[in-house]
Amino acid sequence: MGTLSTLFSPPPTATSTQIISPQTLSFSFPKSANNNTPTTTNHHHRSRRIQSYKFEIMADSIEEAPRRRTTTTGWAARDSSGVLSPYTYTLRKTGTEDVLIKVLFCGVCHTDLFNVKNHFGITRYPAVPGFVVKIPEGMVLEQAAPLLCAGVTVYSPLSHFGLNKSGVRGGILGLGGVGHMGVKIAKAMGHHVTVISSSDKKKVEAMEHLGADEYLVSSDATRVQEAADSLDYILDTVPAFHPLEPYLSLLGFGGKLILIGASNAPLQFVSPMLLLGRRSIIGSFIGSMKEAEEMLEFCKEKGLSSMIEVIKMDYINTAFQRLENNDVKYRFVVDVAGSELQHQ
Amino acid sequence: MGTLSTLFSPPPTATSTQIISPQTLSFSFPKSANNNTPTTTNHHHRSRRIQSYKFEIMADSIEEAPRRRTTTTGWAARDSSGVLSPYTYTLRKTGTEDVLIKVLFCGVCHTDLFNVKNHFGITRYPAVPGFVVKIPEGMVLEQAAPLLCAGVTVYSPLSHFGLNKSGVRGGILGLGGVGHMGVKIAKAMGHHVTVISSSDKKKVEAMEHLGADEYLVSSDATRVQEAADSLDYILDTVPAFHPLEPYLSLLGFGGKLILIGASNAPLQFVSPMLLLGRRSIIGSFIGSMKEAEEMLEFCKEKGLSSMIEVIKMDYINTAFQRLENNDVKYRFVVDVAGSELQHQ
Repeated sequence: MGTLSTLFSPPPTATSTQIISPQTLSFSFPKSANNNTPTTTNHHHRSRRIQSYKFEIMADSIEEAPRRRTTTTGWAARDSSGVLSPYTYTLRKTGTEDVLIKVLFCGVCHTDLFNVKNHFGITRYPAVPGFVVKIPEGMVLEQAAPLLCAGVTVYSPLSHFGLNKSGVRGGILGLGGVGHMGVKIAKAMGHHVTVISSSDKKKVEAMEHLGADEYLVSSDATRVQEAADSLDYILDTVPAFHPLEPYLSLLGFGGKLILIGASNAPLQFVSPMLLLGRRSIIGSFIGSMKEAEEMLEFCKEKGLSSMIEVIKMDYINTAFQRLENNDVKYRFVVDVAGSELQHQ
Repeated sequence: MGTLSTLFSPPPTATSTQIISPQTLSFSFPKSANNNTPTTTNHHHRSRRIQSYKFEIMADSIEEAPRRRTTTTGWAARDSSGVLSPYTYTLRKTGTEDVLIKVLFCGVCHTDLFNVKNHFGITRYPAVPGFVVKIPEGMVLEQAAPLLCAGVTVYSPLSHFGLNKSGVRGGILGLGGVGHMGVKIAKAMGHHVTVISSSDKKKVEAMEHLGADEYLVSSDATRVQEAADSLDYILDTVPAFHPLEPYLSLLGFGGKLILIGASNAPLQFVSPMLLLGRRSIIGSFIGSMKEAEEMLEFCKEKGLSSMIEVIKMDYINTAFQRLENNDVKYRFVVDVAGSELQHQ
């Protein structure tokens, strides 16, 4: 397992193609990172600067890279249809500070879907960022993959805004891949957790399987009114248009509506909903390397795992379709190493 | 000068009338407040709960209230035209924990204007909240009046969010009553201050008279692009619809768009503008009693004053008209005691 942290450089030889889950990747890292002190690269900021998407990659070996070009195969989207198919390309000639890694598992999330389809209009081909973190001894690798997306996406804002403490009252809006980890992590932090959903379909799941304390149907005006001013934060995982006012009204003084689901549909609010109560709307995107490692330790210590469905690479297009239909509990993980990708 | 802090109770005998600047008011306060330790009533929260507007009131005497009803005269709006005229009413019978105060000066701001015209649809007649704070020795009273609105509105979020320190890069959006105090207070905190305005009309004023470091015309796409990611916060004082994206783009990682101008026009943004960079949109409404007193000490220590135009009460309707036309530099202050209000 690797102990360094960095962002992958885009493979310069692949062009105009969105690449998902290549089996091998080369990337640069600073020499100082090649020890047990991970570089705390700020993933938020770097991601924005290079306008890239993210996915999770696990490395099983870090070796000094050969000073030659390496041919590898990944599955790539060729256009905004988002359909993936095998794609062979040549990595750049690696230098003295490069390593080659082999990808074992890769989580799949909505951000990948948006990016292969270029929903944000910012997909730059090729763009294959990712990161490698130290996986705690004893953690199952396919479990770690979605934690590095959904887990850290939840953990980062709760940690950063001082909410990692017991007694906090939290809301989880949307019970999907991120939402289900939201309930688990918030409960493990000792929060009183209310799951907020558009229907009561997920009530049993939320209360009995995930351990939520309350379940609120957002269209139930009476109960929403009763719950006014009661929450310290809401993790809003919805990656689509939704009105913000009903959720802002649930927040107490200083309450935070934390947006972690990206959407290019404009969201609206009226300013008095924020002014009267010093409420805020905050965006948070995944998390830093430091937070990712803290989160993995936290999950290991608390015995938390994500609920996943492991698939082979040739199922990816079906998986994307099911993801779009919210038909997954709760995360697909691609068994990249077990998919026997061949050079095509 | 008073040393207690509380909210005025609405005079129960006035009905369906918005009252501005009554010459005398009775109000209740807890016994514990009648010493040098002001109650830190949370003005934000209380204001929301009682759905009231605020204005500033200075007391020149706090005396044990007579246990009888007192007749007093204020200027009141009778309907949503917002036109004020003399209005005589009887205060409730005061109890053992009530005092009578005499109002000397009263600042006038946009929130008053919105409220007399019921722009937010929440004006409840009668509603005459206010608060009394300890004015530092040596501070001119007519100066203190606008500081208790514009001053604390600016000071509170900067203090609360840890921005009261030198080296911070701030933006002030809108150069009106609040904005001009924003520039003065931010400069006194040691910030690098950029005034952002819709035209270059106020450039000389901002740079030469108020001491801003930079001036940015929001329609100048080139300069806005050059200034991307450069600010730690923007104090957004605009009490009307305006697009948020251009201003969000100016914020760096973790940057805060702090809304302090209330408007009932919905504001829009797209979530990636917040997610990518952990930016936030925060509402802040005036400030707490503690912050008001800190702010007065800060202004006294730094020698800050507001730019005001002192008027008599019978000028109030013209003042509201001029305020609506942005024709005031920068605050009207009503000389209530000098207005010779008579019982009508």
